Amino acid sequence: MKTVKAFAPATVANVSCGFDILGFAIEGMGDIVQLNEKESPGLEVSSISGDDGKLPLDAAKNTCAVAIQAMVEDLGINPGISIQLEKGLPLGSGMGSSAASAVAALIAANEFLSSPYEKKDLLPFAIAAEKIACGAGHADNVAPSLLGGFVLIRDYHPLDVIKLNVPQDLYCTLLHPHFELKTADSRSVLREAIPLKHATIQSGNVAGLIAGLYEEDYELISRSLRDVIAEPYRAVLIPGFYEVREAVKGAGALGMGISGSGPTLFCLSKGKEKAIQIAKAAEEVYQSIGLGVDVYFSAINTDGGYVLTE
Amino acid sequence: MKTVKAFAPATVANVSCGFDILGFAIEGMGDIVQLNEKESPGLEVSSISGDDGKLPLDAAKNTCAVAIQAMVEDLGINPGISIQLEKGLPLGSGMGSSAASAVAALIAANEFLSSPYEKKDLLPFAIAAEKIACGAGHADNVAPSLLGGFVLIRDYHPLDVIKLNVPQDLYCTLLHPHFELKTADSRSVLREAIPLKHATIQSGNVAGLIAGLYEEDYELISRSLRDVIAEPYRAVLIPGFYEVREAVKGAGALGMGISGSGPTLFCLSKGKEKAIQIAKAAEEVYQSIGLGVDVYFSAINTDGGYVLTE
Repeated sequence: MKTVKAFAPATVANVSCGFDILGFAIEGMGDIVQLNEKESPGLEVSSISGDDGKLPLDAAKNTCAVAIQAMVEDLGINPGISIQLEKGLPLGSGMGSSAASAVAALIAANEFLSSPYEKKDLLPFAIAAEKIACGAGHADNVAPSLLGGFVLIRDYHPLDVIKLNVPQDLYCTLLHPHFELKTADSRSVLREAIPLKHATIQSGNVAGLIAGLYEEDYELISRSLRDVIAEPYRAVLIPGFYEVREAVKGAGALGMGISGSGPTLFCLSKGKEKAIQIAKAAEEVYQSIGLGVDVYFSAINTDGGYVLTE
Repeated sequence: MKTVKAFAPATVANVSCGFDILGFAIEGMGDIVQLNEKESPGLEVSSISGDDGKLPLDAAKNTCAVAIQAMVEDLGINPGISIQLEKGLPLGSGMGSSAASAVAALIAANEFLSSPYEKKDLLPFAIAAEKIACGAGHADNVAPSLLGGFVLIRDYHPLDVIKLNVPQDLYCTLLHPHFELKTADSRSVLREAIPLKHATIQSGNVAGLIAGLYEEDYELISRSLRDVIAEPYRAVLIPGFYEVREAVKGAGALGMGISGSGPTLFCLSKGKEKAIQIAKAAEEVYQSIGLGVDVYFSAINTDGGYVLTE
């Protein structure tokens, strides 16, 4: 019986001044999806682990099944596939958990069906799954999870996704506090209208960040990692935000921002040593305010999801 | 008697999605400033040509004198300098006319005073002069006029100016209609608050434009040359805007936008041939609507202003 397994990585979306347009992928952490052939046509979700029973087995609601369904409908086929999802990422953490599940499912399904698609062509199916999981078809988690690297979503109509240059020594530290922040709450604090002046500041910083990535100018990246549009409103929802920021800056972070819609925070740094020091500095702050935290650090994943061979 | 002459080029500011943060310099067109030693200390403006008598000879109001005054005050000296300005650029055209005068004056004065400053350090004096000439200390004309190339003004506090990569075949066509549009009018139509959605679209495009410049991806540059913040309000003040845009796009322009606050329009293209065809196509439209136009085309000037040797 045919079986295929794939992995897709965690991702950081929003990336400070790159609100709603930038995302990048993390090494090592992610979700695994295994597909097994079954005799009867149609998709079924046979098992999910690592989610504390919170995710739906219903194929119409499960992000893996929805993603694969979009793909097989596009192909005009109805194969029999049983889906096993191993969650490696915490739910609702702001680390692109649903995106990693959808992307791993799509990479596995493409391999299962003898690769009818180029990798990048899987993106619309992943966006369709995000619409079910998050209520909005954002691409800033699924695109980096699929393609790896630092990704710009320039436009959605039509979809225009650009893989940016990534300086080799760029590291990320992720701080996931044991605290739940609903995406809807994090979204609801945003303003529908913003001062033109803030839009100009944000544009300048996002332009500086992109130039910094290409110039491999870490100081420029650092100066550009400022978000005047979402962060000022969301930071107040995240315990310890400003204390942690001060500590990680002191430990050498180029900048810190809210990963996705939080509560996970990401820090960028030059080199692994700094990433480790940042993690330690942050842990001390969380300890001092009595909040548990999971800490990860990694280089930027440049390849995205992939098929796991036995 | 000591005499020094310098040239500074025309510039395009605002650059579509780069509203208020991007500018680039043009080859060939610009202003010339000659400085002559005079016996009594202090600055005087002895002559201005090419301005139809519109510019002030009063040293307290003349952009060249104001720029040099800021410099000599910084140096703590009071040399005797007589200033001659040859305007090569039309006034109030949106081609960085006042910026070119200030920059040419500063480059000449720096040479006159045996180069106390690095070129880039002249920028604050040029911004001070822009404050007098335009009422606002913008840097998006003076920075490219001084430094050349495609320039990002990431921030003003402190000033953070980044010279971006310029693809070798990038050409600009400038269309200067015989029509006056006051900067104040062009500024007054802008909204003080904008939808968050528009800010995100603008960010995506400016990020795409910067990535396109570094990747030397002309198609990406083309897709990114969209301004949803200023252009929709300003275009209606510029006769023939949409007809000209259709014509130049048909002639191969990567994009078209308002230069500065108008009424001059700029088009970017790949290669000189396209730039010429764009100029012709635009001239036909202006002729059909009975509006005179001056047309220029040039590569992107990569060096900025310079001292003219006899």
